[in-house]
Amino acid sequence: MQGLMMDVPLTIPLIVRHAEALHGAKLVSSRRPDRSIRRITYGELFARARRLAGALHDLGVRGGDRVATFSWNHHQHVETYFAVPCMGAVVHTLNIRLSAEELAYIANHAGDSVVIVDRILLPAFERFRERLTSVREVIVVDGEGASDLPPGSLDYETLIAGGTSHPFDERIDERDAAAMCYTSGTTGRPKGVVYSHRSQLLHTLVVAQPACLGLAERDVVMPIVPMFHANAWGVPYAAALAGANQVHPGPYLDPGSLLELMSSERVSTAMGVPTIWLGILQELDRNAASYDLSALEHVMIGGAAVPESLIRAFAERHGIAITQGWGMTETSPVGSISTLTSELAEEDPATQYAYRARAGRPLPLFEIRVRDESGVRPWDDSGMAELEVRSPWVASSYYEASDSGERFTDDGWFKTGDIASIDARGYIAIRDRAKDVIKSGGEWISSVVLENAIMGLPGVAEAAVVGIPHPRWDERPLALVVPRDGSLITTEEIRAQLASRFPKWWLPDAVEVVSAIPKTSVGKFQKREIRERYRDRYSELTVDGGRSTDSNSLTSVNSQPSTVTRQA
Amino acid sequence: MQGLMMDVPLTIPLIVRHAEALHGAKLVSSRRPDRSIRRITYGELFARARRLAGALHDLGVRGGDRVATFSWNHHQHVETYFAVPCMGAVVHTLNIRLSAEELAYIANHAGDSVVIVDRILLPAFERFRERLTSVREVIVVDGEGASDLPPGSLDYETLIAGGTSHPFDERIDERDAAAMCYTSGTTGRPKGVVYSHRSQLLHTLVVAQPACLGLAERDVVMPIVPMFHANAWGVPYAAALAGANQVHPGPYLDPGSLLELMSSERVSTAMGVPTIWLGILQELDRNAASYDLSALEHVMIGGAAVPESLIRAFAERHGIAITQGWGMTETSPVGSISTLTSELAEEDPATQYAYRARAGRPLPLFEIRVRDESGVRPWDDSGMAELEVRSPWVASSYYEASDSGERFTDDGWFKTGDIASIDARGYIAIRDRAKDVIKSGGEWISSVVLENAIMGLPGVAEAAVVGIPHPRWDERPLALVVPRDGSLITTEEIRAQLASRFPKWWLPDAVEVVSAIPKTSVGKFQKREIRERYRDRYSELTVDGGRSTDSNSLTSVNSQPSTVTRQA
Repeated sequence: MQGLMMDVPLTIPLIVRHAEALHGAKLVSSRRPDRSIRRITYGELFARARRLAGALHDLGVRGGDRVATFSWNHHQHVETYFAVPCMGAVVHTLNIRLSAEELAYIANHAGDSVVIVDRILLPAFERFRERLTSVREVIVVDGEGASDLPPGSLDYETLIAGGTSHPFDERIDERDAAAMCYTSGTTGRPKGVVYSHRSQLLHTLVVAQPACLGLAERDVVMPIVPMFHANAWGVPYAAALAGANQVHPGPYLDPGSLLELMSSERVSTAMGVPTIWLGILQELDRNAASYDLSALEHVMIGGAAVPESLIRAFAERHGIAITQGWGMTETSPVGSISTLTSELAEEDPATQYAYRARAGRPLPLFEIRVRDESGVRPWDDSGMAELEVRSPWVASSYYEASDSGERFTDDGWFKTGDIASIDARGYIAIRDRAKDVIKSGGEWISSVVLENAIMGLPGVAEAAVVGIPHPRWDERPLALVVPRDGSLITTEEIRAQLASRFPKWWLPDAVEVVSAIPKTSVGKFQKREIRERYRDRYSELTVDGGRSTDSNSLTSVNSQPSTVTRQA
Repeated sequence: MQGLMMDVPLTIPLIVRHAEALHGAKLVSSRRPDRSIRRITYGELFARARRLAGALHDLGVRGGDRVATFSWNHHQHVETYFAVPCMGAVVHTLNIRLSAEELAYIANHAGDSVVIVDRILLPAFERFRERLTSVREVIVVDGEGASDLPPGSLDYETLIAGGTSHPFDERIDERDAAAMCYTSGTTGRPKGVVYSHRSQLLHTLVVAQPACLGLAERDVVMPIVPMFHANAWGVPYAAALAGANQVHPGPYLDPGSLLELMSSERVSTAMGVPTIWLGILQELDRNAASYDLSALEHVMIGGAAVPESLIRAFAERHGIAITQGWGMTETSPVGSISTLTSELAEEDPATQYAYRARAGRPLPLFEIRVRDESGVRPWDDSGMAELEVRSPWVASSYYEASDSGERFTDDGWFKTGDIASIDARGYIAIRDRAKDVIKSGGEWISSVVLENAIMGLPGVAEAAVVGIPHPRWDERPLALVVPRDGSLITTEEIRAQLASRFPKWWLPDAVEVVSAIPKTSVGKFQKREIRERYRDRYSELTVDGGRSTDSNSLTSVNSQPSTVTRQA
């Protein structure tokens, strides 16, 4: 028996119609390249988006065509987020932090026909422009009067001024593609995730729930997470639907600029990756009196594991509660959030910090499980196994990738590549990336747990832990540590402090004190490069006297003299 | 180009899986017929629902079959809300307030195969049981040991105890029917609305948004709105998905019982129709100190127009903010809610009360317009025209009704039958029902606006206004007024007080002081009956001296001597 309800497709034009009707006077503010703030209303923004769509249509863009962006967060990027899907085309966000090689590959693989580029990103764009095979038009944002524009490129504002308003009322199928984003995988070629209108709309509805971002009309939300990667956590859509003001930092992601913007725009909700918030913490520690964060209610951090010490420092030193979110490009991206339950809200601060530092509980309609060779594991926080997820906003395959299959299970779940455990309350703890977990003597050691523990030690600014090949134990941990300004750290101190919290066989055999840890284009530790650089570290030791293999127990591995190497 | 996202159907089992995994220890509390409170966890509730589904399957219930309920609000009713749709069948809520004739017609028209009946509602059920043509099984809730059970009936608890757990993991199509409810139309036969899994799930997601009920895990929600009509505003599903505790009042809807339950269960969110809250207000006015409403954050009223005086009285005398919701059986039911925008939150109390007394702004994905013969009207709050709506949770037709068509426009909107205006901010004001609006001399007068104004006057407990046939002006308003205990009211006083707020031609020609106003089975004014009773009121006047027709202007109509008739 069929339901007898209206067949209204779940498409992004529904967001536009709602926001235009109810929230036309609310604001989207952006910091421009000249540091000034531009404020436009949603009403103006949607009118501009309709004209942008008209101009793109005049340029020959049709349903299914890919229109790429190469942009910071600003209102023009928001306009593109609406204009392109609402005309039936696909907005493809190019990650400005990737290498020229990756970008050329990605734009060509996606078959982008138009690229919209920020004027200030033209130098980066020029590094791969000549290699683009399908791009017919280049549109430059904030390019008026510039002398260095690519030949034949078009000016964004001129197009909007001349565009005829495109209706957003076509009947789009909800399973049509709305957006694309490539994963910056560290192994193999980048892979394209293709979001549908349906997945984007459902993600929008769930992200706005009280248990997630809790976005309401009175909010002022600042996504420091980039719109060029993983939909900026869905904020541009969720804020529009809720009628919350949006604040976009443009290219200025230094802590001072961000804090100044949060103060002046009275931001209530902000989200970003841990490194951003680490910088903000340091600036606040130095200059708290310079900023007014009295409107700030809600800070969310995601994109990488959040050290508990960071959460604690914000709460104790600045009265700011931090919630952790977890997600991936393949999950639209938000899958879980560490909002405390009413039960945990009654617990002591230490318990609360520990829970806030977990990856959180799954959102409604987002299903999780951890599974290893023996099957699906119980939610008892024991062991480590791969996290698998299922949801209407999780990818079912990659775009034109023959090796898509290995990431998807036969029963329809996505293998995240994250090693995790889930506790009885449903809180996920990400223990590691599958490729980073350290396999030592048949057991697993979490590199992330170790590095977070080290980052919580006094005198440590940053730390990364990787597994290095070891002739006897398969792999053994090695830690890179960046000392806090002026601090002196020894391997013995670090091992001694870790010894009270971990089994001896977890302790890194070697601790390298370095001035910086190599990072990927999106700010994550470049563990592949670290492993490469130190690949012979333990085999050398073996050759150099066999100190780490002359014993029968793992314990004795850790009794070897540790070495400290200070690098330039 | 297709999106490449998982094809996870939007079905009610998604709610069960989420709530079972995350909120298994949260509570559903119900007041039983013996007045005791029974508390069970969501974990127990879903386990029972699976066994109920198993038992129904053993009884031959299959996909698409209709299983009816004839019940108050309690955990067994919630169990049915989950068990029936999650096994692919259709839960059909019979409105216990309808007449035996209507109920027999509705159950037969729907083709119900099983009815689940509360023991204490058996007398009402017996009045139409013999007329049921398709019902094979009768299951009695709370019927253990009763001697008056229908022959061959089954005991609910015995079934659950013996039921084998039914898996809720079948692949249900999201457009399959999940539930049914008939409108208690005052004209024509009742008509069946068939909700799909998709519509129920989308309604659930949107109702939980911060701008609507804002349900979170920490909430304790009490739907005083009945589960036997219009899904209890979707609360059973939305609360489960959010993990909020539910509190159900069972058969005890008197103000004292409700207030006692709100106090003891620390209810944070409650919703009901205006008459319920009028009773609660009167009890609070008398005995505020007897109750502890310190947990109550959120009161929503809907189902009929909410007089501003009620909102004002709750706020000023008891510090309780009331929000109005609007919806219909055909709209799942929630369509709009009068949450104040951040702009209005800065306004003076009078403005805020006026806005809270409107029907509110449409929810996300719920589109509204007012349209008359001249077309769609602007949002300028002028005039009155029919409200039309469109949403994935609005009916597209009625179940097996040949005259379905007249309520749906050619371009796919539902004609609500409500006469409304919409202001520039998007707030709907329901002026009247299309059938109740008073057509006087080619202009429309809102019966609802008049009766709300009269109910705000001192000395008035309740008032209804209807249009009565008039030989010259087509119709003229007539008011029925129930005085507050001990008050004396005259027509002249009422007309004098209305005269400062309305044009003279709006003023009721006659005011009848009565001891009670006839109401429908769901507590709304029985205006058809009132019109019937007074149908000759103005024609009599004409015959009786022609006083109301011996003039040329509408003004003079109102100069006629008004009459007061005191009824027994």
